[in-house]
Amino acid sequence: MIDTVAGALNWFGVAVFATTGALVASRKQMDIVGFALLGTVTGIGGGTIRDTLLGKYPVFWIAEPGYLITCVVVSCAAFFLVHIPQSRYSLLLRFDGIGMAVFAVTGTETALLAGAAPVVAITMGVITATFGGMLRDVLGGESPLILRHEIYVTAALIGAACFVLLTVAGFARDAALIAGFVLAAGTRLCALRWKWSLPRYRPREERPPAE
Amino acid sequence: MIDTVAGALNWFGVAVFATTGALVASRKQMDIVGFALLGTVTGIGGGTIRDTLLGKYPVFWIAEPGYLITCVVVSCAAFFLVHIPQSRYSLLLRFDGIGMAVFAVTGTETALLAGAAPVVAITMGVITATFGGMLRDVLGGESPLILRHEIYVTAALIGAACFVLLTVAGFARDAALIAGFVLAAGTRLCALRWKWSLPRYRPREERPPAE
Amino acid sequence: MIDTVAGALNWFGVAVFATTGALVASRKQMDIVGFALLGTVTGIGGGTIRDTLLGKYPVFWIAEPGYLITCVVVSCAAFFLVHIPQSRYSLLLRFDGIGMAVFAVTGTETALLAGAAPVVAITMGVITATFGGMLRDVLGGESPLILRHEIYVTAALIGAACFVLLTVAGFARDAALIAGFVLAAGTRLCALRWKWSLPRYRPREERPPAE
Repeated sequence: MIDTVAGALNWFGVAVFATTGALVASRKQMDIVGFALLGTVTGIGGGTIRDTLLGKYPVFWIAEPGYLITCVVVSCAAFFLVHIPQSRYSLLLRFDGIGMAVFAVTGTETALLAGAAPVVAITMGVITATFGGMLRDVLGGESPLILRHEIYVTAALIGAACFVLLTVAGFARDAALIAGFVLAAGTRLCALRWKWSLPRYRPREERPPAE
Repeated sequence: MIDTVAGALNWFGVAVFATTGALVASRKQMDIVGFALLGTVTGIGGGTIRDTLLGKYPVFWIAEPGYLITCVVVSCAAFFLVHIPQSRYSLLLRFDGIGMAVFAVTGTETALLAGAAPVVAITMGVITATFGGMLRDVLGGESPLILRHEIYVTAALIGAACFVLLTVAGFARDAALIAGFVLAAGTRLCALRWKWSLPRYRPREERPPAE
Repeated sequence: MIDTVAGALNWFGVAVFATTGALVASRKQMDIVGFALLGTVTGIGGGTIRDTLLGKYPVFWIAEPGYLITCVVVSCAAFFLVHIPQSRYSLLLRFDGIGMAVFAVTGTETALLAGAAPVVAITMGVITATFGGMLRDVLGGESPLILRHEIYVTAALIGAACFVLLTVAGFARDAALIAGFVLAAGTRLCALRWKWSLPRYRPREERPPAE
C-alpha cells in the first residue's frame, strides 16, 4: 500500500520538478527543445547524481525510461500550457514541496538499501531532493537555489534525518517513511506559508575606528 | 570502412570541440593552463558524462588516453594560434556542427550497444553531442548553450532519433549511421547558413485591465 | 610514517577546503545549512569526481563517512566563527595551497593504483585538487577559479606531473610523494607571496585599417 502511494508520489514529484524546469525555460524564452532539456534535467537530475555517486547501475531512468519520457512529455506540454503553472505559481510551489519531500525520503531509503551509512544516506536524500533544482538553476542561468534564503534544503535535510533516525531506532519502515515525508513537506509548506527562514550569516559591524 | 571514417570523424570532433573551448578561454584571456583545462573539458566532457551515466567503465578517454592528449595539444596550440580559429570563426562553427553530428550518432550507438532502451540511447546521443559545450559555458562563465536561440541541441536530437529509428526498423548499421550523421550535420549547417531557429516561448500579452 | 603524514594532511585539506566553501557562503550571507552544503561540496567534490570517473566504488566519503562529517562540522563551526578565517585570510590561502598540493599527489596516486595511464593519473590529480573549488564557485555564484589569473591549477599540474614522472622513473614512492607535494605547495605559496602568474592570452592589436 505505502509502496503504491510512495511510487505514485515519486512520479508526481518527477512531473512537478520537470514543470519547474519548464517554467525557468519559459522565463528565458527558450524553444521547445530547451523546455524538454531543462525540464528533464530538473526532473531526474537529483536521482541521477545519487545513483552515480552510489555506483548503483543502471541509473533509475535508464532502468525505467518512463521517468525520462514523463519529463519530456510534461516539459513539451508546458511549452504550450505554461500559463497554467504560471497563474497557479503558489500551487506549483506547494506541489514542488511535496515532490521534494518524497525525493528526500525515497532517496534516503535507496541509499540505505545500497548499504550506505546513516549520515551518507541523509546526504543522498538531500542530493536527490535538491540537486535537480541546482542543475536547473546553473544551466538555466538563474541564481542558484542555495543562494535564496528559503527553507528548502533544510526541509529535505530534516525529513531525511527523521527517516534515518526512526529506521535506526527500529521503527517500521512505513512509519519512518510517512514521518519523514510529513516532516519535510510540512516544514516546506509552513515555510512557504509563513515565509520562514533561518538566520543568515551577518557580517560583523565594523568597530568604530575611534574606539 | 565506415568504422574508419566514423573513428576519424570522432577524433576530428574531439579536436574541434577542444578548439571551441580554447576560443572561450581566449575571450576570457586565460593562461595556457586555462586553455588546456577548458579545451579538454569541452572535448571530452559529453562522452564522459555519457559513460558515467551508463556505468560504462573505463570511461573512453581513460581507456584511450589519446583523446585526452589530443585535447591538451590542440588547446595549447590554440593559445599561440588562436587568431586562426578566430579569423575562420564561421568555418569553425561548421566544423563544430560536424563534430556534434558525429558525437550524436556514435554516442547513441554506444548507448544502444550498452543495452539502453531507444529513448535512453537518443538521450545519450544528445548528451554526448551537447554537454561538453554546456560544461564549457558554465566553467567559462559564458551564457549557457541552451539559452541561445539556435538549432543545436535540436540537430543532435534529430540525428540521434533518426539513427535509433532506422536501427529499430532493421536498417543496416552503416545506413543508419550515415543517415543520422547527415541529418544532424545538415540540420545544423542549414541552421547556421539560413539562421534557422525554432519558435520560442512568448509570454502572453496581458489582457487590457478594462476588459 | 609517510602514510600517517599524508593521511593527516588529507584530512587537513578536506577541512581547509570546507572552510573556503564556508567563506563563500558567508559572502553570500547564507544560512547554516547553506554553509554546510557549500563547505561539503568544496571539501569532497574533487575526490568525488575523481572516484566517479575512475569507477572506483564506493566513493571515498561513502567508504569513510568521517570526511563528510568533518566537512559538515567545520562548515557549521565556520557559521559562528567565520571572522577567524576572514581575519586570517592570507593564512587560509596558504593552508588551502597545502591542501591542494596534498590532493594533487594523493589523487594522482589513487588513479595510478586504479591502473590509470600516467597522463590520466596526472589529470585525476588536477581534478582532485581543483574541481571542488570549481563546484564551490559555480554553486556559490562566484567567478570560476579558472577565470582568475592565479597559479593554482598550474601548481596542481606541476605537482601531479612530478609525482608521476618520478614514479615512472623508478623512484621510491615516498620520495615521489614528497617531491610532488613540495613542488605543488611551493609553487602555490611562492605564487601567493610574489603574485606570480602565467602570461595570459592577449588579443592581437587590430591592424590599422589604412594599411
